[in-house]
Amino acid sequence: MPSNAPAVKRAATLALGAEVVDVGLASSERLAVAEELVRQHGYVAIPPYDDEQIIAGQGTCGLEIVEALPEVDLVLAPVSGGGLLAGAAAAAKQLRPQTKVFGVEPELAGDTAESFRSGSIVTWPAELASRTIADGLRTQSVGQRNFAHIQAFVDGIVTVSEGEIRAAMRAIVAAARLVPEPSGAVAAAALLFHGAELPPYTCAVAVVSGGNVDPALLAQVLTKT
Amino acid sequence: MPSNAPAVKRAATLALGAEVVDVGLASSERLAVAEELVRQHGYVAIPPYDDEQIIAGQGTCGLEIVEALPEVDLVLAPVSGGGLLAGAAAAAKQLRPQTKVFGVEPELAGDTAESFRSGSIVTWPAELASRTIADGLRTQSVGQRNFAHIQAFVDGIVTVSEGEIRAAMRAIVAAARLVPEPSGAVAAAALLFHGAELPPYTCAVAVVSGGNVDPALLAQVLTKT
Repeated sequence: MPSNAPAVKRAATLALGAEVVDVGLASSERLAVAEELVRQHGYVAIPPYDDEQIIAGQGTCGLEIVEALPEVDLVLAPVSGGGLLAGAAAAAKQLRPQTKVFGVEPELAGDTAESFRSGSIVTWPAELASRTIADGLRTQSVGQRNFAHIQAFVDGIVTVSEGEIRAAMRAIVAAARLVPEPSGAVAAAALLFHGAELPPYTCAVAVVSGGNVDPALLAQVLTKT
Repeated sequence: MPSNAPAVKRAATLALGAEVVDVGLASSERLAVAEELVRQHGYVAIPPYDDEQIIAGQGTCGLEIVEALPEVDLVLAPVSGGGLLAGAAAAAKQLRPQTKVFGVEPELAGDTAESFRSGSIVTWPAELASRTIADGLRTQSVGQRNFAHIQAFVDGIVTVSEGEIRAAMRAIVAAARLVPEPSGAVAAAALLFHGAELPPYTCAVAVVSGGNVDPALLAQVLTKT
């Protein structure tokens, strides 16, 4: 786990009986440590995003959206390594080609937006990508398989500010009565604050993709405006 | 609306285009003002709990529980005027007689527990019933039709402390990623802290019945332990 992982995520992992191995902020370091543990102990490696089965598994999110809302014309999902976005977009777009699909990431970790614009994967330094409050979206570059899916099925990537992420968290708490982690609130932030960058819609879905938020951080977000 | 209603409930009501008429803390004063407004304007009065249709409507909660979890053997629901508890208990108990049904209320507004023990409805002074953080459960006495249902279909009433309500709110945020108002957390508080007063169970449901919590209060609950 990166050394800056939220305490609530660490505690929940320990509570499940796992051993937590601390690593630095760089994705490459995490991968090297994981590969070494697999080699030493014969563990099964579960890749976080750049994997066909992981992408297919997260495709169920797109399936569920189209099943629940057959008229959906805009889907927004967070993007970091790109597993959720690649899977959700592949499913939604192939079931309903007229539906627009957008990825959303923090401005402070906007590598995938840059990759999407330039047409090839760019990598951000860990120090830059780690600045955002959205700790689940600090990956330095999108995965290769994920990027291929994104190029094929995604219509655009929108970036949101740190203040917009916090405001979206407050809106989700107040209006949906759900507890989002910062990373889970970016798609709602795009819908709330970046309408001008999105196509017109009558039925939009913003995926709220995680609730691992430290109570103290949630309290701070709720009180500071 | 009673003068001590949470700001978030008031704001949501105003946002829907309603006019809010302030009244004092006593239930009798609220009812008198409502009846006067009905007389003046020809409005349709919707009683908050002591009404067959209101009780039947809230019975859908019991129906949904038994439908989703046919093996349920314990259901806990908040009780104040008694609409939700009466309806949920009537439905759950008649569908599955072996299921135990308990009402839960704050110790500081424990009129229904007292009524249940004594076998007849008692009324608490508004000043006493208004002390609890659970602003949705400050009714001074349970309704007559509600009490008849409770006597027929409810196995017991458990009361919880203010600290237990706050701890249950934190647990619901952390484990269920839901935003509960204090009144919505009392059933979970009974399950978490009053197991000794409850029958043994393998499948229990605590109804989380509301999310109208002021962000500042939620922040305070999340940080103060």
